[in-house]
Amino acid sequence: MPLITFRPSGKSIEVPSNTELLDAARQAGVEIDAPCGGKGTCGKCLVRILDGHVDSSSSLGVLSADAVAAGHVLACRTRLGAEPLTVEVPEASGREGMRIAGGDETALVRGELLPRKWEYEPMAMKWLVRVPLPQLGDGLSDLDRLTRSIQHDWGPQPVLPPLSVLRVLTHALRAEQGLVTTTLIRSSNEIHLIRVEPGDQTVRHYGIAVDVGTTTIAVQLVDLTSATILGTRSDYNEQVACGLDVISRINYARRPERLEELRTRALHTINRLLRQVTQEHTVAPDEISNAVISGNTTMLHLLLGLNPEYIRLDPYTPTLHETPYLTAVEVGLEINPESWVCFSPCVGSYVGGDITAGMLCTDLATETEQINLFIDIGTNGELVIGNRDFLMTCACSAGPAFEGAGIECGMRAAIGAIEWVEVDAATGLPHYWTIGGGKPKGICGSGMIALLADLLRTGWIDASGKLDRTRPSHAIRVQGRHAYYLLAPLHESGMDHAIQVSEIDIENIIRAKAAIYAACALLLQHAGIAFTDLANIYIGGGFGRFLNIEKAIVIGLVPDLPREKFHYVGNSSLMGSYIVLVSQEYHRRQLVLARRMTYIDLSSDPTYMDQYTAALFLPHTDRNLFPSVTP
Amino acid sequence: MPLITFRPSGKSIEVPSNTELLDAARQAGVEIDAPCGGKGTCGKCLVRILDGHVDSSSSLGVLSADAVAAGHVLACRTRLGAEPLTVEVPEASGREGMRIAGGDETALVRGELLPRKWEYEPMAMKWLVRVPLPQLGDGLSDLDRLTRSIQHDWGPQPVLPPLSVLRVLTHALRAEQGLVTTTLIRSSNEIHLIRVEPGDQTVRHYGIAVDVGTTTIAVQLVDLTSATILGTRSDYNEQVACGLDVISRINYARRPERLEELRTRALHTINRLLRQVTQEHTVAPDEISNAVISGNTTMLHLLLGLNPEYIRLDPYTPTLHETPYLTAVEVGLEINPESWVCFSPCVGSYVGGDITAGMLCTDLATETEQINLFIDIGTNGELVIGNRDFLMTCACSAGPAFEGAGIECGMRAAIGAIEWVEVDAATGLPHYWTIGGGKPKGICGSGMIALLADLLRTGWIDASGKLDRTRPSHAIRVQGRHAYYLLAPLHESGMDHAIQVSEIDIENIIRAKAAIYAACALLLQHAGIAFTDLANIYIGGGFGRFLNIEKAIVIGLVPDLPREKFHYVGNSSLMGSYIVLVSQEYHRRQLVLARRMTYIDLSSDPTYMDQYTAALFLPHTDRNLFPSVTP
Repeated sequence: MPLITFRPSGKSIEVPSNTELLDAARQAGVEIDAPCGGKGTCGKCLVRILDGHVDSSSSLGVLSADAVAAGHVLACRTRLGAEPLTVEVPEASGREGMRIAGGDETALVRGELLPRKWEYEPMAMKWLVRVPLPQLGDGLSDLDRLTRSIQHDWGPQPVLPPLSVLRVLTHALRAEQGLVTTTLIRSSNEIHLIRVEPGDQTVRHYGIAVDVGTTTIAVQLVDLTSATILGTRSDYNEQVACGLDVISRINYARRPERLEELRTRALHTINRLLRQVTQEHTVAPDEISNAVISGNTTMLHLLLGLNPEYIRLDPYTPTLHETPYLTAVEVGLEINPESWVCFSPCVGSYVGGDITAGMLCTDLATETEQINLFIDIGTNGELVIGNRDFLMTCACSAGPAFEGAGIECGMRAAIGAIEWVEVDAATGLPHYWTIGGGKPKGICGSGMIALLADLLRTGWIDASGKLDRTRPSHAIRVQGRHAYYLLAPLHESGMDHAIQVSEIDIENIIRAKAAIYAACALLLQHAGIAFTDLANIYIGGGFGRFLNIEKAIVIGLVPDLPREKFHYVGNSSLMGSYIVLVSQEYHRRQLVLARRMTYIDLSSDPTYMDQYTAALFLPHTDRNLFPSVTP
Repeated sequence: MPLITFRPSGKSIEVPSNTELLDAARQAGVEIDAPCGGKGTCGKCLVRILDGHVDSSSSLGVLSADAVAAGHVLACRTRLGAEPLTVEVPEASGREGMRIAGGDETALVRGELLPRKWEYEPMAMKWLVRVPLPQLGDGLSDLDRLTRSIQHDWGPQPVLPPLSVLRVLTHALRAEQGLVTTTLIRSSNEIHLIRVEPGDQTVRHYGIAVDVGTTTIAVQLVDLTSATILGTRSDYNEQVACGLDVISRINYARRPERLEELRTRALHTINRLLRQVTQEHTVAPDEISNAVISGNTTMLHLLLGLNPEYIRLDPYTPTLHETPYLTAVEVGLEINPESWVCFSPCVGSYVGGDITAGMLCTDLATETEQINLFIDIGTNGELVIGNRDFLMTCACSAGPAFEGAGIECGMRAAIGAIEWVEVDAATGLPHYWTIGGGKPKGICGSGMIALLADLLRTGWIDASGKLDRTRPSHAIRVQGRHAYYLLAPLHESGMDHAIQVSEIDIENIIRAKAAIYAACALLLQHAGIAFTDLANIYIGGGFGRFLNIEKAIVIGLVPDLPREKFHYVGNSSLMGSYIVLVSQEYHRRQLVLARRMTYIDLSSDPTYMDQYTAALFLPHTDRNLFPSVTP
């Protein structure tokens, strides 16, 4: 009987060969979610084989070819061989309402797109120097001797220390016989000295990657010595209380004190997540020497306290696209105050740094001739199409429905969210699964996609999203003109009300998916390209570990193309921030990409409304566009 | 009868020719101090002839050749001709206890040493640009358009704005049809954009020059468009409460919270003086775009919160000599927070930025072959000797006696200070004059020098500074082992005690002058130079408008050399700061000078004590050194 060892818990068990891996885990007392009950459709029981061989029949469509190549399998579709096995079980999605995807987001990005080891070159570097002790008559100050030691290694550029560094010099240069760890940022002609510590502290060198979304903010702690992601925390952007989308935030910010309130709310969210993730990994705020932040143009303006008014007024001119380097203390980030904060560049008022960051997770950032499409589904939808020769981009207002906002029982992908639903064809009753496994508190984007796809598959809704009132089902309730689909009655609910989805909610989702599909179709039209010309379609968004492509095609969110062309890259804005954080080469590449992009204004295209209207069906009014979706 | 007009009051009077100018002023109701009663010895009735000719017999020794060349005369020694005359009367020294010398300090520095008009080039410049209004489709942000406008004029270097500037861009670029005034600092490869204002604000462009002395702090407001000094304020350094000299301050700073206290005290003094001088001239703090600060090495460390401990511990290594540019907000100066603050470079632990600033007021900063000596008399005495080929410097601990500290009834040169004393040879009674003309509150440095010189001249003290107890005088009182010289009995005093000078006070002054003379003699010995080889002797210090060279020689403070070789340059640290503020060329020159200087450590010279002991007499034990001083 082979010995199966599970990481990171270290639990192990001997079981007969040919046992299903999911069963082995349960026997060993290792918790693995399997909301679809082992059918291999939900993708929630993902694990990674660290050592050993298995027989896996994981289907594409749920699991990308990249994920399989990286050793991922579905525990419910995997049978053990005769040899010992070591299996990595990711931490539960949404644990404590904060964690996402167990810090394993890199697995979603194709390995060859990530910086190689030799390209690891964070903006801030730790550098050990031995500074001679002071000597009578050499006429050299502490700063003189330190500067010379650094210049000895890095050349004669000026070395610029801020006041806070000067204040610790006497101690730092004398505490360990002159052995000091410097934190340096080398710009074109200068060396900025942002920290000096006595002794060898080179192993403690951290950075943060931040995604500031309209609805959700994510903060990732990275060990800069090895480019390792230590942990990620995310939560609602506290600005949500001041409006659900960017336009309402811009309106809210019209008075200076309200702009300041929005700035403080975003900053407060970031700093709170930062404290959580650093405390969990016993990292002091001062040990964080660099931050990269990506967000849309409005989020960037609000975070910096820049008046966003002209973003939405003709001619739609923001204060800036490329942000100069600012220090953490200027921005208000609670890390080493002298750290430089780098912002992903924006392209225009409606294509921001989240997109130029996200592109780094795709082939669009490479020298390929193949034409690729990147769709980022957040509160707004942004798209980029192109190859090494051209890059076109556009934005559409999808609304925050996929992030659970603007939906009656909607919520983000956190503890208690229904993230997966199957519908019984005969009774119409739901079988659902929540993040964390407890009572449902609401439904998140991936739950809505799964629900709509399955209601459509089983005929309980029609192409316009109306629930079937003609067949009796305990799940369908009609109140006045509208019908509701009951996911969890009050006694099953984790809230003080039942969890249900109304036809108005369904309409919201349909409008969101129609906006994205229409933008997609129109952008390709502008580029003179057919869907079939696309080599790869990258999808970014906060859906959690997986977006079920099959279901997304069924509802017409994305075009009906061979499933292997799709790559779900997760929170690409966050991953792009990570990439920029660990590699200045990629940061330079990002700036070049941003400058190369041409913005297409869909709102001024008279055919956009036609495209949008045609997409307001499931999957589409033109069923020929979705040949593989059986009606 | 010629018409005599007085500036700035505008008062005028017609008087017969050959009238003494002092009488004409009094008849016109113009107040001119004349403490010596019109003998031409005190130099207090200084005025400047703006237009017209006079017959003046002002003696050198009181008035420098430079001052005479600049049109200065003593009102008591000047008789009117037949033609109309316009006379400038400086404001009273010490008025309001704050003003010094009516902003006329430039008059003390030889004109040819000051920057020429074409050398006016402050670090920060105001530059008017017209930024195109935003246009649909050009893809340019506000910052892009502003940057291009600046680069169009100044070349393609990166333009770096801080966050505070970014926050006002939307308004500034739209308020006056794109006409904006930028405040720029051009460094080697970058343009720092520290302020943007709507419209043409180029005429309102200010800077401050600051002297941070151990005892006194002075702040000078300068109009950077014309390099005009608008006003100067000075007061005690609030650190005085924590120790009179640098060593006691360093000791005080041993605990971090006390270092912070010292930092705050200096900063508080500067900001208070700054508020006074800006309010007086209706200048807003934000309109001040540059600051230059000079002070000794310890004062610099304390102002920046740098641990000064190692300044006084072998091997006497400070944290820094050259300070990197810091912003006003980092330093804590209450001016435009983004302003760069420039510090005069130090040479070593005991030769600081006050000296490298002061040298700019002397021939030592020029390409001359002649050997010059610069003596700066503050709480410490510092000396520099050299020419274009060599520069040697040393420091001696004179103590704050010349600044009125450590003297029982001593005070700084402010309202109520006795600044001039004459002694009646027969009775020994004093005739004194206070700053402001009111009741005396104490005696300042120039008063002590005048008193000692006249007591010596009249034989009421001997060469060791002991008062004559053998002749009866109402001015001399003996209490126990010590005798006192009574300047003002209680009923004449502005305080609740009599104003008197004890033999201990006299000893303090003698020790101070001995330290300076000995350092002077020894430095020349190290340089292999005789006193007679000196072309010029520049004396800096806070003595007010004039240091009476004759009296200073009589007591042996400075060597007995031809009077025309002496140039009193006033607060040379402040004037040097002004020079650096208005001219980057002089700033570069200052850095080169500082690096060229060789520091001579007098404390390690075994003959210093002999030289010092020999100088503990009035004027000196070796009377041959002072042939022109009649015993």
